[in-house]
Amino acid sequence: MSASRQFASDNTAGVHPDVMRAIAEANRGHAGAYSDDPYTERAVAAFRKHFGDDCDAFLVYNGTAANVLALKSVVRTHHAVLCTEFAHIWYDECGAAEALVGCKLMPLATGNDGKLTPERVAPLFDRLGDQHGSQPRVVSISQTTEVGTVYSVSEVRTLSDLAHSRGLLLHMDGARVCNAAAALDLPLRAFTRDAGVDVLSFGGTKNGAMCAEAVVFFNRALGADFRFIRKQMLQLSSKMRFIAAQFDALLSGDLWLRNARNANTMASLLASLVRDVPGIELAREPEANAVFARLPPGCAARLRETYAFHTWDAATNEVRWMCGFDATEADVRAFADAVRRAMAR
Amino acid sequence: MSASRQFASDNTAGVHPDVMRAIAEANRGHAGAYSDDPYTERAVAAFRKHFGDDCDAFLVYNGTAANVLALKSVVRTHHAVLCTEFAHIWYDECGAAEALVGCKLMPLATGNDGKLTPERVAPLFDRLGDQHGSQPRVVSISQTTEVGTVYSVSEVRTLSDLAHSRGLLLHMDGARVCNAAAALDLPLRAFTRDAGVDVLSFGGTKNGAMCAEAVVFFNRALGADFRFIRKQMLQLSSKMRFIAAQFDALLSGDLWLRNARNANTMASLLASLVRDVPGIELAREPEANAVFARLPPGCAARLRETYAFHTWDAATNEVRWMCGFDATEADVRAFADAVRRAMAR
Amino acid sequence: MSASRQFASDNTAGVHPDVMRAIAEANRGHAGAYSDDPYTERAVAAFRKHFGDDCDAFLVYNGTAANVLALKSVVRTHHAVLCTEFAHIWYDECGAAEALVGCKLMPLATGNDGKLTPERVAPLFDRLGDQHGSQPRVVSISQTTEVGTVYSVSEVRTLSDLAHSRGLLLHMDGARVCNAAAALDLPLRAFTRDAGVDVLSFGGTKNGAMCAEAVVFFNRALGADFRFIRKQMLQLSSKMRFIAAQFDALLSGDLWLRNARNANTMASLLASLVRDVPGIELAREPEANAVFARLPPGCAARLRETYAFHTWDAATNEVRWMCGFDATEADVRAFADAVRRAMAR
Amino acid sequence: MSASRQFASDNTAGVHPDVMRAIAEANRGHAGAYSDDPYTERAVAAFRKHFGDDCDAFLVYNGTAANVLALKSVVRTHHAVLCTEFAHIWYDECGAAEALVGCKLMPLATGNDGKLTPERVAPLFDRLGDQHGSQPRVVSISQTTEVGTVYSVSEVRTLSDLAHSRGLLLHMDGARVCNAAAALDLPLRAFTRDAGVDVLSFGGTKNGAMCAEAVVFFNRALGADFRFIRKQMLQLSSKMRFIAAQFDALLSGDLWLRNARNANTMASLLASLVRDVPGIELAREPEANAVFARLPPGCAARLRETYAFHTWDAATNEVRWMCGFDATEADVRAFADAVRRAMAR
Repeated sequence: MSASRQFASDNTAGVHPDVMRAIAEANRGHAGAYSDDPYTERAVAAFRKHFGDDCDAFLVYNGTAANVLALKSVVRTHHAVLCTEFAHIWYDECGAAEALVGCKLMPLATGNDGKLTPERVAPLFDRLGDQHGSQPRVVSISQTTEVGTVYSVSEVRTLSDLAHSRGLLLHMDGARVCNAAAALDLPLRAFTRDAGVDVLSFGGTKNGAMCAEAVVFFNRALGADFRFIRKQMLQLSSKMRFIAAQFDALLSGDLWLRNARNANTMASLLASLVRDVPGIELAREPEANAVFARLPPGCAARLRETYAFHTWDAATNEVRWMCGFDATEADVRAFADAVRRAMAR
Repeated sequence: MSASRQFASDNTAGVHPDVMRAIAEANRGHAGAYSDDPYTERAVAAFRKHFGDDCDAFLVYNGTAANVLALKSVVRTHHAVLCTEFAHIWYDECGAAEALVGCKLMPLATGNDGKLTPERVAPLFDRLGDQHGSQPRVVSISQTTEVGTVYSVSEVRTLSDLAHSRGLLLHMDGARVCNAAAALDLPLRAFTRDAGVDVLSFGGTKNGAMCAEAVVFFNRALGADFRFIRKQMLQLSSKMRFIAAQFDALLSGDLWLRNARNANTMASLLASLVRDVPGIELAREPEANAVFARLPPGCAARLRETYAFHTWDAATNEVRWMCGFDATEADVRAFADAVRRAMAR
Repeated sequence: MSASRQFASDNTAGVHPDVMRAIAEANRGHAGAYSDDPYTERAVAAFRKHFGDDCDAFLVYNGTAANVLALKSVVRTHHAVLCTEFAHIWYDECGAAEALVGCKLMPLATGNDGKLTPERVAPLFDRLGDQHGSQPRVVSISQTTEVGTVYSVSEVRTLSDLAHSRGLLLHMDGARVCNAAAALDLPLRAFTRDAGVDVLSFGGTKNGAMCAEAVVFFNRALGADFRFIRKQMLQLSSKMRFIAAQFDALLSGDLWLRNARNANTMASLLASLVRDVPGIELAREPEANAVFARLPPGCAARLRETYAFHTWDAATNEVRWMCGFDATEADVRAFADAVRRAMAR
Repeated sequence: MSASRQFASDNTAGVHPDVMRAIAEANRGHAGAYSDDPYTERAVAAFRKHFGDDCDAFLVYNGTAANVLALKSVVRTHHAVLCTEFAHIWYDECGAAEALVGCKLMPLATGNDGKLTPERVAPLFDRLGDQHGSQPRVVSISQTTEVGTVYSVSEVRTLSDLAHSRGLLLHMDGARVCNAAAALDLPLRAFTRDAGVDVLSFGGTKNGAMCAEAVVFFNRALGADFRFIRKQMLQLSSKMRFIAAQFDALLSGDLWLRNARNANTMASLLASLVRDVPGIELAREPEANAVFARLPPGCAARLRETYAFHTWDAATNEVRWMCGFDATEADVRAFADAVRRAMAR
């Protein structure tokens, strides 16, 4: 893959320069190992600034870990986690939840917007109390969703109310939670904690960090044993200060929001540039930093001669184009040109 | 903890400047995600330079992960892993192997040198074939050991021969394998692959990296499914190039060796400086970068007013002082002075 | 629940008198513990008579165990097992496979016949080699299916060929495998081993036993470690002879077949008796010992005043009536009368 | 193995005739499946009669299951269970607890009496709160112990007080709890519930049952999710009434006590008959139904020509002779004669 900016994933991007600088600056002398250091203290304080003084935040290396550890904290092996059939926890983590938590994931079909709905969730509650069935314990949603849509505050609230009404918890996979905040133009807590989310996987890596994710508990009791779980689940960095510094750089100011806004804006620009190309159909309106389009036969292959990207649905020739935190207008215009050329041939 | 250099752990140190520079230099443009990038290629090539072209190396975040994933690759739940009662996998990983591999660890007593011996291992083979007992499958040793001693080539060979004679494998926890190479004054492969080790957890973090460990398979078949295991076990970094760059910096030249030698030399210096202080007894001769000493009552508490370090055995007042890759002669002399003062009071 | 014969489940029945007699007769003096006894030898010999001298059979307590242990023998945590959304392993084992094997189960939609088809299975193979996805390793089918249908030999063969073509195995959940043999009028091995099944969960309990199931490996290498797995998975009976005696009673003669035939015949009779009742619709033709019918509103509730049975699909008022090995014509006629009365009201 | 009564294990015995009769009598008509039957109700009532109305008892197939499920109910993967190095859960369950619960077992050395002592347990509490160490959560003792000794009420109380003082629970592996009651000449609850035990694995199989064990919670909240755990852990019998009938037969009257007393008396007789044979040394005084003796070289081999039994410690020629519930004075005298003959040769 060339060093030019890509549209395959928001993980092909590097690290935002301010984050890299913070990492380098954390490299002064010795510091306590295993999160017992002032950098971690500052990072946790930044989370509390956003989410409230009485929440707890724990840093981990990557997004799969943030999801699995969040679930591990609140789920036992006889529990079920309800999610969509596109959910990262179901589809893209190589069975990590089943292997490390030991619970059952229940993948639910969705509409074109890729969202979990009360109508899909509620029937699963019929198994509550039935000893032959895994017991629903967590509803898990991705914000933004895997198809680039964004749950509104009221959609989150409806799901959290439903979950809580039957004693379940609401987990949010927030690998792109910053993009959601930018899209909704709301503070981070407005559509998470304040909308009834119980535990949040907070993503920093796609937002410009190197390897920085967190699990945020809005009810601290749920995270009471998290330190042990984190160590056991291979996520306690001995030199934690270097993860903490990344979050400090992102969250103490507004870098997280600028990065997210840029990615979203670039996706919006890309959509506008390809929307009217004859033969291309947007699979759905981009709401954050992803554009999904259905291409005519042959087009994707030609475009891949110069750009890498994922096929989302081979049956319908639907592809996914992601804009990273670092995408530029020039990148996007060049890519849109390439799309047009791939169509024209 | 102050920013002065500490003797509590080789994890309180930061990152070697050359490693930090390599990380910053890897931050150019986009690169393939999830280890599909040229930095990872170079890091793997560096491992092959040291260990042979036909080995496989996989990068992970931390040492606990390197151990657990190495075991997970070759062990099933009905297997047992034989190790010492001080082994990191037994004592210091919050039960990660039991939870993630599901196997039994069998902790064996050791002599003062903290080493596993054939005499301790062999009787466990009596359970082979007995359906009521976990089946011994791996012998795991730490090089250097947790008490700062170093297995000789022939000691490793004796254990690997014993293991192989009964169909078992030999795993080496090499969190400090570079220190062992420096201590033995041998190439890395001489006391690992060439001495019969089957799978090695290779440590970079204590040697000057930020978060860089690896699992090295000398028999590639053993690692055939490792990519899936790594993803599932939460160790696949989306921006893997930044881990890879660390190993490239350490292993492509001789930085790994210089760092290890310095740590060892400083431990040796420290031992020589405190050896003759009346009332202090070295628990064993330091062979790598750790000094273990028995202190008279009260001394440790006084020393802790200015320095942090671990109590190794409360019953005998034995403490552990670790020298990091970055320890300086001035650090060590200042610490030795502090020891003498703590004794004098 | 009264002691009258029920139609809720083939588990409400008791034990066939010949099986009970065999249990009592096994209670003579002492015998080796943990399957080291002549009764177990005879039971294994009976399995080999049916399936071939070079297969291995291991006895366990119940059907969930037979399924989970069969999978545990051939699956690792990064593997996926493909099954229908009605499969017992997915729906009715409280997440046992996820918890004890640690793998992912992938539930696939089915047509009205409740069968897995090559068209549903093949697309899942797209993930083979993709480190982000659980790796398909086993296709699992239930024979008879959970909706009372029976795979033909050629249907089994098509699925086994497909599985084997990509390196997967075919597992059969044979909780009702005897009913399938009776329905197909074929020897047990004709539609299992000879049709490409690799490992079979063989059900005795629904066929008249008290607690007797087995895992049968047609490739003995797959079961090489089964003894350890069975012990670890809580299925090694200390007084195994009493399980073995049950299989001896069923399999050494033709009791297994007579029991299965009777259950199937009674289901066929029941279908014929209710088929023409106005307002009742058979959901599908019964092929073994289950009848599925759609009832008009209110009917099920009235029928439940005297009989217990399961609702299969609340949305369509589909219910399930099972005939046990011990069902009699009088039972069935009485039940059909009750159905008619429940309709009439 | 011949049908004559053996001294290898209390599992080589068959089933007490009264238990077998109860099983046969339970085979009347249909009954609710999966423990929803009147036999199970009666069995649970019998447990409540012995242990108090506010306890909960759940039936399972075997002793390993009773132990593992008891632990699974109260332990998470980051917890540790403290037991002796002879404990069945550590030594004889093929790693079931590690595999199914995912926790760490910590085996502690014992004195000649095979008992856990406060002095061995207390130092482990030093890890409480240390994120690198599995967190002690349960102290588990076997009553009777694996070496045939019996904890007094005050010994149990001391351990439960110690455990509770640090927030731990006390589990008792009561595979031979009836023998302990007989030995102590106390009601079952006197040295279990009333001595501070939180959860008990209650053994019926060695006491004359076919396959009947139970998990008894003295604090019902601890067992709140047990039904789901039992199903998932492969221990929910579809025809549960046949397990329940066994407990009803043992516990509703005094059959359990008569069986236990007989086994203990026979062990006592055996000890008295061999005690003075020159060259034989009793390893410890038998307190329940096991006799441990150290034999001169060659003696064990000669005795094995006619009797099967376990070597307990090959290094000291210590062997174990178990007396079953059905041992007779004639059996014991014949065995003692054989011992004498084996010595004499």
